[in-house]
Amino acid sequence: MELNQACEQLRELQEKLSAFGHAMALIYFDGATTAPKGTAANRGQTLSILSRESYLLSTGEQTVALLTYLDGHKDELDAKTARQVEILYKDIKEMQKIPMEEYVAYQQVLVEADDAWHTAKETNDFALFCPYLEQIFATERRFAAYCAPDMHPYNYCLDKYEEGLTMEKCDEFFGTLRSRLVPLIAKIGAAQQVSDACILGDFPEHEQEKFSLTLMQTMGIDMAHCGLGTTEHPFTTSLGSHHDVRITTNYDRGNLASSMFSVIHEGGHALYDLNSDDSLAYTVLDGGVSMGIHESQSRFYENLLGRSRAFVGYIFPKMQECFKAQLANCTAEDVYRAINKVTPSLIRTEADEVTYCLHVMVRYELEKKVMSGELEVKDLPAAWNALYKEYLGVDVPDDTHGVLQDSHWSGGGIGYFPSYALGSAYGAQLLAKMRESVDVDACLAAGDFAPINAWNRAHIWRHGCQKKPGQLLADVLGCDFDPTYYTDYLEKKYTELYGL
Amino acid sequence: MELNQACEQLRELQEKLSAFGHAMALIYFDGATTAPKGTAANRGQTLSILSRESYLLSTGEQTVALLTYLDGHKDELDAKTARQVEILYKDIKEMQKIPMEEYVAYQQVLVEADDAWHTAKETNDFALFCPYLEQIFATERRFAAYCAPDMHPYNYCLDKYEEGLTMEKCDEFFGTLRSRLVPLIAKIGAAQQVSDACILGDFPEHEQEKFSLTLMQTMGIDMAHCGLGTTEHPFTTSLGSHHDVRITTNYDRGNLASSMFSVIHEGGHALYDLNSDDSLAYTVLDGGVSMGIHESQSRFYENLLGRSRAFVGYIFPKMQECFKAQLANCTAEDVYRAINKVTPSLIRTEADEVTYCLHVMVRYELEKKVMSGELEVKDLPAAWNALYKEYLGVDVPDDTHGVLQDSHWSGGGIGYFPSYALGSAYGAQLLAKMRESVDVDACLAAGDFAPINAWNRAHIWRHGCQKKPGQLLADVLGCDFDPTYYTDYLEKKYTELYGL
Repeated sequence: MELNQACEQLRELQEKLSAFGHAMALIYFDGATTAPKGTAANRGQTLSILSRESYLLSTGEQTVALLTYLDGHKDELDAKTARQVEILYKDIKEMQKIPMEEYVAYQQVLVEADDAWHTAKETNDFALFCPYLEQIFATERRFAAYCAPDMHPYNYCLDKYEEGLTMEKCDEFFGTLRSRLVPLIAKIGAAQQVSDACILGDFPEHEQEKFSLTLMQTMGIDMAHCGLGTTEHPFTTSLGSHHDVRITTNYDRGNLASSMFSVIHEGGHALYDLNSDDSLAYTVLDGGVSMGIHESQSRFYENLLGRSRAFVGYIFPKMQECFKAQLANCTAEDVYRAINKVTPSLIRTEADEVTYCLHVMVRYELEKKVMSGELEVKDLPAAWNALYKEYLGVDVPDDTHGVLQDSHWSGGGIGYFPSYALGSAYGAQLLAKMRESVDVDACLAAGDFAPINAWNRAHIWRHGCQKKPGQLLADVLGCDFDPTYYTDYLEKKYTELYGL
Repeated sequence: MELNQACEQLRELQEKLSAFGHAMALIYFDGATTAPKGTAANRGQTLSILSRESYLLSTGEQTVALLTYLDGHKDELDAKTARQVEILYKDIKEMQKIPMEEYVAYQQVLVEADDAWHTAKETNDFALFCPYLEQIFATERRFAAYCAPDMHPYNYCLDKYEEGLTMEKCDEFFGTLRSRLVPLIAKIGAAQQVSDACILGDFPEHEQEKFSLTLMQTMGIDMAHCGLGTTEHPFTTSLGSHHDVRITTNYDRGNLASSMFSVIHEGGHALYDLNSDDSLAYTVLDGGVSMGIHESQSRFYENLLGRSRAFVGYIFPKMQECFKAQLANCTAEDVYRAINKVTPSLIRTEADEVTYCLHVMVRYELEKKVMSGELEVKDLPAAWNALYKEYLGVDVPDDTHGVLQDSHWSGGGIGYFPSYALGSAYGAQLLAKMRESVDVDACLAAGDFAPINAWNRAHIWRHGCQKKPGQLLADVLGCDFDPTYYTDYLEKKYTELYGL
């Protein structure tokens, strides 16, 4: 084999994998947005075949030979190609450890689990979802044992979403958050409460949808390459490359903020994905590098920018245009206070910034216990409810508003949740860095996201997966990750807001 | 190879082809319904790769060996398997004649052509679409020369949509229609005109959408396996198998009948596809057997049932529920007359039953000329406008309402159009047969489609592609196809309606 020829084959391999990825992601997106109710088994059939083909492509003799050859010549490769080989070679070595039939069967289980989860959530019926969730946890444990027999199975899961993350690091990180947030929450609880009356009312879905598009445009999202759909649980997905990204939201007719901040959150993910350098399209370097970095962007736009006084000042007149009657008697400051009201509550995606990480910690503790074999899946609802009582002081009325609320587990995303908290904390430190060269508040007050997006593009987005997440962060920050940027930010903002 | 093992491989092959088909059809459906505007090239990239993989699967050495073996043992196969081998072997022999690179390149051209057509139609810019259409016609001619060098290239195209159809048969069929319809249209033109005022007005899209769902339910469409989307041009597609079918429509806010009859038309296609026998799923026998038979079902529901006095009598109160204010001052008979108003017009999909086939004849004559090399693609707009003047007596104001109106050519569907006329005529003869055992008018008046659907399921739908279209029709009718059933039906209905 010659090097040039091998590089050409590497390109073709990645293009094929991207095409299979496009098809599978679109089938999933269709299932979540548009597909008729009775079609999950049909999608499962197709997905199991496509994932098998994709698996064979990834682990076939030809591919192994190609990557072994290229790995042996890595010193002669340019940086991008070398990184592609590194990522693919790591993946392939892992995939080879998983028997193909198990891998393919798991893809089909996930489709059926997603369907069962939707019904279970709708009908408050955990028992319906339980057997699927048992299979999912069991499979994740089995795959962890195949791929990393010397590692704790939950560490294997955590590392999938944020390279190098471990239970030890999580425990330390969550410990820091807990020590600062629990007293803050207590002080807020004792203070004069703010009112969120102005964002509650009747906001028809098609009006909210129009406002969603305004938000996306304001954020500087390229609408020629990014679409908006409606799903039970909001998410972002790329189809084939960063040239086609879709975000989804879920409208709550009684609460204007619910979808608004889902759209800004998913819009943050979309900006990251859309702005990979064009040279990365149809390679494994396209798109976000880890879920921690991804959530640092989504939670950055949602909270650090979206829930700021400066941004609310800019967007409030546009909200009034869409919801003239509903917002007739309130001010931008009313909305600012309403969307930042702190209340220990039931639903993670609608939680305020201060209590948010406690929701994540509940999931982290439960996943850790199930993956360690200390807790059975069937006992998750009771354990969930007990932790919500302990951490947030709330009584969970039913599983729909409890253990069934998130879509992550039904999609196999065990180990994902800590990324949300970690990303939130990365974001606060990134904002401090950005402020050294960008007048963020002035930009937000003018609704001008261009300088903010340019900074993120230059430092984060355009790199795709070229750098490892730790390296990317170190290069941007110029120092170690420090979660106290995040706790300081929260203390300062909420001390002022609640007059503590 | 053993026979059992070969049959198992045949099943796997068809399942894989179905999975690729699912992915590609969904990418097309997404492009037409939901995808952001700037994503066509990205879809083209993925489709070219998937179609290449699908091509390799269909024509690879293994597949050829398998089908050659099975063809050699066809006497030992059950009827279904034998028919699967027959269809696949015919396809493969044809595909082998087309160079893979040309086949794959054509798939990408079609994606880009679809995008160009949308823009061209929107902006009334034939010049933008012309180079794509030139490529499409040139490719169809080239493929015809590869696959059937002894056949007229347009006969090759016609045969793709209706096995055995030729220009000779078309000329005879259209001649019969012309000789009966032209005098009828002239008589109607001289008679007292009917008013269509009651279906014109302001019908908001989301109200029309609700009514569309009512129509689908009334028709007995299984909504758990059939979805409704909105597109520039209505169509029906199956995803992977008959377990997931999508129809689309296009709403004209000023005209209630426009989308209504698109929904019933596409609903007829959907009923046919949805009701293949379950044993046919994930095989090449799943779904409709030819476009002629397919259109016999869609135009059956749209016109023979949907535009009947009995059905309008049933559906009118439901229309009034959706459009209370707009339909306050009219009767079912007003609506019946309005939706059957005969006027030579510009748009095929909105044409009345009597002039409809003239629209098809225009396309047939033009396709024949371009495929014969007698007419250049760049001269199509002028030729189109001249034929509309000659056949329908109307002046085409612009290409958006002329040569750019249909999506078929941009999708490579040269030779498709005659199926519409042929299907309409099949339908009239099928209705006469159905009336021998089903009281169709009583069913329609009661909104009870079950007996009608049961007849179609038993005689047509459940068979999928097990019988050839000619055989299917002969078995149902018990006699030869006779287009005078259709012309008799039209003469009788419109003589009464217009008091001729």
